[in-house]
Amino acid sequence: MHRPGRHFLQIPGPTNVPDRVLRAIAQPTMDHRSADFAALAYDVLAGIKTIFKTRGPVVIFPASGTGAWEAALVNTLSPGDRVLTFETGEFARLWAELAKRLGLDVEVVNTDWRQGVDPELVEGVLRADSERTIRAVMVVHNETSTGVTSRIPEIRKAIDAAGHPALLLVDAVSSLASVDLRHDDWGIDVTLTGSQKGLMLPPGLSFNAISDKAINASQTSQLPKSYWAWGPMLTMNAAGFFPYTPATNLLYGLREAIQILHEEGLEQVFARHRRHAAATRAAVRAWGLDIVCRREDEYSPVLTGVTMPDGHDADAFRTVASERYNMSLGAGLGRLKGKAFRIGHLGDFNDLMLAGTLSGVEMSLAVAGVPFRRGGVQAALELLASR
Amino acid sequence: MHRPGRHFLQIPGPTNVPDRVLRAIAQPTMDHRSADFAALAYDVLAGIKTIFKTRGPVVIFPASGTGAWEAALVNTLSPGDRVLTFETGEFARLWAELAKRLGLDVEVVNTDWRQGVDPELVEGVLRADSERTIRAVMVVHNETSTGVTSRIPEIRKAIDAAGHPALLLVDAVSSLASVDLRHDDWGIDVTLTGSQKGLMLPPGLSFNAISDKAINASQTSQLPKSYWAWGPMLTMNAAGFFPYTPATNLLYGLREAIQILHEEGLEQVFARHRRHAAATRAAVRAWGLDIVCRREDEYSPVLTGVTMPDGHDADAFRTVASERYNMSLGAGLGRLKGKAFRIGHLGDFNDLMLAGTLSGVEMSLAVAGVPFRRGGVQAALELLASR
Amino acid sequence: MHRPGRHFLQIPGPTNVPDRVLRAIAQPTMDHRSADFAALAYDVLAGIKTIFKTRGPVVIFPASGTGAWEAALVNTLSPGDRVLTFETGEFARLWAELAKRLGLDVEVVNTDWRQGVDPELVEGVLRADSERTIRAVMVVHNETSTGVTSRIPEIRKAIDAAGHPALLLVDAVSSLASVDLRHDDWGIDVTLTGSQKGLMLPPGLSFNAISDKAINASQTSQLPKSYWAWGPMLTMNAAGFFPYTPATNLLYGLREAIQILHEEGLEQVFARHRRHAAATRAAVRAWGLDIVCRREDEYSPVLTGVTMPDGHDADAFRTVASERYNMSLGAGLGRLKGKAFRIGHLGDFNDLMLAGTLSGVEMSLAVAGVPFRRGGVQAALELLASR
Amino acid sequence: MHRPGRHFLQIPGPTNVPDRVLRAIAQPTMDHRSADFAALAYDVLAGIKTIFKTRGPVVIFPASGTGAWEAALVNTLSPGDRVLTFETGEFARLWAELAKRLGLDVEVVNTDWRQGVDPELVEGVLRADSERTIRAVMVVHNETSTGVTSRIPEIRKAIDAAGHPALLLVDAVSSLASVDLRHDDWGIDVTLTGSQKGLMLPPGLSFNAISDKAINASQTSQLPKSYWAWGPMLTMNAAGFFPYTPATNLLYGLREAIQILHEEGLEQVFARHRRHAAATRAAVRAWGLDIVCRREDEYSPVLTGVTMPDGHDADAFRTVASERYNMSLGAGLGRLKGKAFRIGHLGDFNDLMLAGTLSGVEMSLAVAGVPFRRGGVQAALELLASR
Repeated sequence: MHRPGRHFLQIPGPTNVPDRVLRAIAQPTMDHRSADFAALAYDVLAGIKTIFKTRGPVVIFPASGTGAWEAALVNTLSPGDRVLTFETGEFARLWAELAKRLGLDVEVVNTDWRQGVDPELVEGVLRADSERTIRAVMVVHNETSTGVTSRIPEIRKAIDAAGHPALLLVDAVSSLASVDLRHDDWGIDVTLTGSQKGLMLPPGLSFNAISDKAINASQTSQLPKSYWAWGPMLTMNAAGFFPYTPATNLLYGLREAIQILHEEGLEQVFARHRRHAAATRAAVRAWGLDIVCRREDEYSPVLTGVTMPDGHDADAFRTVASERYNMSLGAGLGRLKGKAFRIGHLGDFNDLMLAGTLSGVEMSLAVAGVPFRRGGVQAALELLASR
Repeated sequence: MHRPGRHFLQIPGPTNVPDRVLRAIAQPTMDHRSADFAALAYDVLAGIKTIFKTRGPVVIFPASGTGAWEAALVNTLSPGDRVLTFETGEFARLWAELAKRLGLDVEVVNTDWRQGVDPELVEGVLRADSERTIRAVMVVHNETSTGVTSRIPEIRKAIDAAGHPALLLVDAVSSLASVDLRHDDWGIDVTLTGSQKGLMLPPGLSFNAISDKAINASQTSQLPKSYWAWGPMLTMNAAGFFPYTPATNLLYGLREAIQILHEEGLEQVFARHRRHAAATRAAVRAWGLDIVCRREDEYSPVLTGVTMPDGHDADAFRTVASERYNMSLGAGLGRLKGKAFRIGHLGDFNDLMLAGTLSGVEMSLAVAGVPFRRGGVQAALELLASR
Repeated sequence: MHRPGRHFLQIPGPTNVPDRVLRAIAQPTMDHRSADFAALAYDVLAGIKTIFKTRGPVVIFPASGTGAWEAALVNTLSPGDRVLTFETGEFARLWAELAKRLGLDVEVVNTDWRQGVDPELVEGVLRADSERTIRAVMVVHNETSTGVTSRIPEIRKAIDAAGHPALLLVDAVSSLASVDLRHDDWGIDVTLTGSQKGLMLPPGLSFNAISDKAINASQTSQLPKSYWAWGPMLTMNAAGFFPYTPATNLLYGLREAIQILHEEGLEQVFARHRRHAAATRAAVRAWGLDIVCRREDEYSPVLTGVTMPDGHDADAFRTVASERYNMSLGAGLGRLKGKAFRIGHLGDFNDLMLAGTLSGVEMSLAVAGVPFRRGGVQAALELLASR
Repeated sequence: MHRPGRHFLQIPGPTNVPDRVLRAIAQPTMDHRSADFAALAYDVLAGIKTIFKTRGPVVIFPASGTGAWEAALVNTLSPGDRVLTFETGEFARLWAELAKRLGLDVEVVNTDWRQGVDPELVEGVLRADSERTIRAVMVVHNETSTGVTSRIPEIRKAIDAAGHPALLLVDAVSSLASVDLRHDDWGIDVTLTGSQKGLMLPPGLSFNAISDKAINASQTSQLPKSYWAWGPMLTMNAAGFFPYTPATNLLYGLREAIQILHEEGLEQVFARHRRHAAATRAAVRAWGLDIVCRREDEYSPVLTGVTMPDGHDADAFRTVASERYNMSLGAGLGRLKGKAFRIGHLGDFNDLMLAGTLSGVEMSLAVAGVPFRRGGVQAALELLASR
């Protein structure tokens, strides 16, 4: 059954895939051992480095983002290794759970899910680890379940201030290509992401950007690995190939997406996301609703988590948005289930799409009988028209 | 250069083509003399009748809508024949011009471009034609240059009341599949349209729905014709073929578009267009701007023409919308050039796309320094949320 | 119902459309009055000149090739004008018929449909026209119904030798972009074509390349015209626009197709077509069947017409090819109906596609019980492997 | 740079993806937590069972086929478990290597790479395992590196005859949907495959069909797992969802591919593959070359491995095919590198594509100076025309 017009896919990923990318992935599959394939591989392997802002290698798995979580750990750590995690939200929690299932010794620092990783706390924990038993600090850059962006450069400084040798592993699943991230300059050891957020691709590719220090760690890592092993990837990639069949058609899309990002310009892409996030917050405040994120310096440029008024179910509200206005909004996850919803404003997105999105939220609030003040869209439009 | 997000194509046609239709036209071209092609031809030739609401034949030309204008005339008339036209706007004017170029004797009734064809006037002119020299009455159903929809059933009644034998030729270029039109019930002799409006296709197909009376007229018509000749079309179509190579890939799209229209349901499609037009007028009124159309019973469901305040250039305003908000609005045409702009709200369209569109207009008014009252979008949202 | 593998579309047009072109036409339709559209229009209007090898204008109609026939005549001639035609096959016959329907005085020179236009005859007829009443010579460059390519440069010389002022109008529907054609160097006044042959597009665009002499003729031409009128086209094209809605999505495809032709190189494209035609004839001869075309210097590079042995129906044979081998072959047309079939080897085509095509013919001959000698494919392969 | 015509992708996978599947994967990505997604998930999860011929669950990973190897092992086995493998070719060897890397105790039975797994040997080894320490028998159904298809039903009987409780794990990467395979009837415990062979999809999905016995084994399996864990997959799949973001666009393609397979009919698909394999062998024999597979009852229906004459390099020959004829052939792998090449004739394929493929091989043999007898294509055509 056709529903008229375009669906508004305003979850914080998968994002609206540009037509150009969809057409790119519809190209005929090619021989992954041919010279033409090698040319594609060189393009994407070089191009993706410019997005991670690294001169080191980035490996690409045919997998969704969760695979990148696993790859970052199994390549650098050994059974029983101690890792430091911060439960800033549902995805941070899930990554820590995964680490436990792999046999790591996971130390969890809890938060109220309304703020990012506290750099001072990082420094404190690491300083206290006088034996240097912590092998890795795992940080989610942009917590997709809440809309809070942790301050990676300050965390890096904290680790350095503590003089601690732990690896810094960063989940950039919902930040890369939407929020500034500098793998090299920020001294990250593994930056991981998936294809379906800022990269504007369908899900199915995952990535690990790898520092020299991480490469070294992988030499001694004892966790069992095969599919996720960096070694054969790096060896084969050097010749333009992969150790097993790559997801060729998504690589076509990746080439196109990298091209698109550079056509707009990465800095302009980041500015656009910040501007849309500011307009969204202007709307939320005008409605009289609460933003999940507490700190101004941690507002996410890619999504805004909004707390529902007490006694109103976020999922019932989202159903109105979906059924009546053909828009998908993000659910509250984990402890926020039913209590919050999330507005994704990332990826291939512009002012009028945002205006349509916020209009859908405003009308859905009205239709769902949620108490709110009118004028959120109006507030956003004024911000957008003035900047 | 990539501009982020989707373009808002809010001219009153070509309209936003659904992805399903774009994928359909990307199917490999087939042999137009094969059995597979005949199956396609039968599908679209039968299907398009349900859209015109006719049991008679509809011929399909590989041409844009202008070709359908020419076809309607050259098949039914002879050099020097007298035709009655009403200059309700730029497209009515152009069709009359075309008739003159073909050697017809064109009588033009002028209007102020803010209303449709007056049925009383039709009756008066025809009654006065005691010699019955007028061979055809040419009416534009929905005048795309102004946003005025003429009342075809009342015009039909006027012709009947005058007891006049003239053919009724109706331009439904921007009305078919968006506004109710009943070729048979309304006694239209030729209803013509193009593919790029309510049919949600790219431009490149044009159509003539033909009454028995029009078929009879074609037997004696003396205007020279070859490409546009109905005769060979009707003969070949009966076997599932065309007298010359058809625009196969657009026919793939047509099959899909007809399917889409029936999935939503034609009456629901019409209701959707009326609702969006009402919301648009609510916005325009809230902004304090004038609607070109004067009469409530002639408001167009597919587009709204808006008059610019004196001293402000509509094209400068449209440039802001295009450059800053990635939205195409319709220009004022002919005598309205620079004085009006047009908001298209037809085709594959929904509430949030309309909200984005009106937001783009409101922000562009602000940016362009046009005097207006804020709150148009708000007014539209309230209407949309309440119905 | 899915039939496995790719259909072999081996009629002499529409041809196999490259995936790149299909994806290009699936791009979203744009505003045909926007700056982006003007950029597209400039690209294709300039690009298509390089294919016609002309510095003069080429106009593009949203129409199939038949429209280009009509356009060439109505823009240059007046009612009752005398034109010289040569019935070299079914398409030449149809074009002459069209000229008659438009009210021209058509002189037909007959042939046996197995050779092209005889330049000596052209010279003779024109010399005999001492009153210079013949206004145009209409020649089909590559007769698609037979596989015979007329020698345009020699015909040009014949006209010049006769010192006759008639316009030279050339149908290049199945030759352009497959067979060398030089609009300017060969002194052609109107070269016309469609999109669905050597240009590798779906049907729906038609073209007129126009000499200065033809432009001059159009100033005084009296045939009625509107859709096909060059004047408004040339005026609007100068600004990057069209006088009525163009077939935008096919223009996307045209831009891509021109790019593809230049990537391969036009001279290489022509050489490829000649090579495939030679291999096809090697196969036909090895099978012991007759080639329709009699003259070596008139063999068509784009298709080969093959005469069926007496008592065997070409259409029954083609049905075998279609039903059993999923291949469309061209039917015998007009007086060749049932007596000949046509193998198209033009457009986006390569050695292995040709080998598959000829294999399909050879197997279909066997299955249909047509008397033939085995070894045609073998002969073609040897030719292809040796050059 | 455009190369004219279609590439012939005649490696034994990835295979030629049907246009319908490419268009399906180009649909906009949707919310993987929406009701629309659940409908898609139910479709593909139910549909894929009909292809595996199982009533049990099939899990789908966003991964290439190698992931399915890993998943089959980590879900059923524990560190140090003994598994029985048969090195029938390069892929069997690689799967065994993977098992070693995961910490399993791998027993390898060698072969000459020219035959499949010997059921008698299976029975012998298992009977000898009086302690029942072998936990799993790993068999590659169709060895893609050689073109040998092992006889799974006989192997099943051998295991039963030995009364051995080992799990039967079958790699059906290049057999599923091309060669008959009956997960339930044949008593397989895990059948694994990837998307890019008989399923006619781009690479990026992998599959495990799971017996009750395998489910039971997974309850006690101790190998660490997260991404590949069946448990959360089975739980979430029951509600139409996945435990992490699925490869949505490839699932669109999967739905289409399953539909395509059923339109043709699975048994007809298998017969088509057998017929093409027979025609290919007829060609190879006519050329006087050797087929890698020794046994008539183990000829692969999906690819044919061909041994190069001594002193001739298979890769140099393949380069000719690629550069001159735009065809990818499969390389000799592992110990066959340079000594053999592989002709893929699987997936979305038909008689004329096979004829083109074999023509490309025959011409490349000639051009590369490989000694061979002419007439292979001729032999294949005679077989294809006669059946």
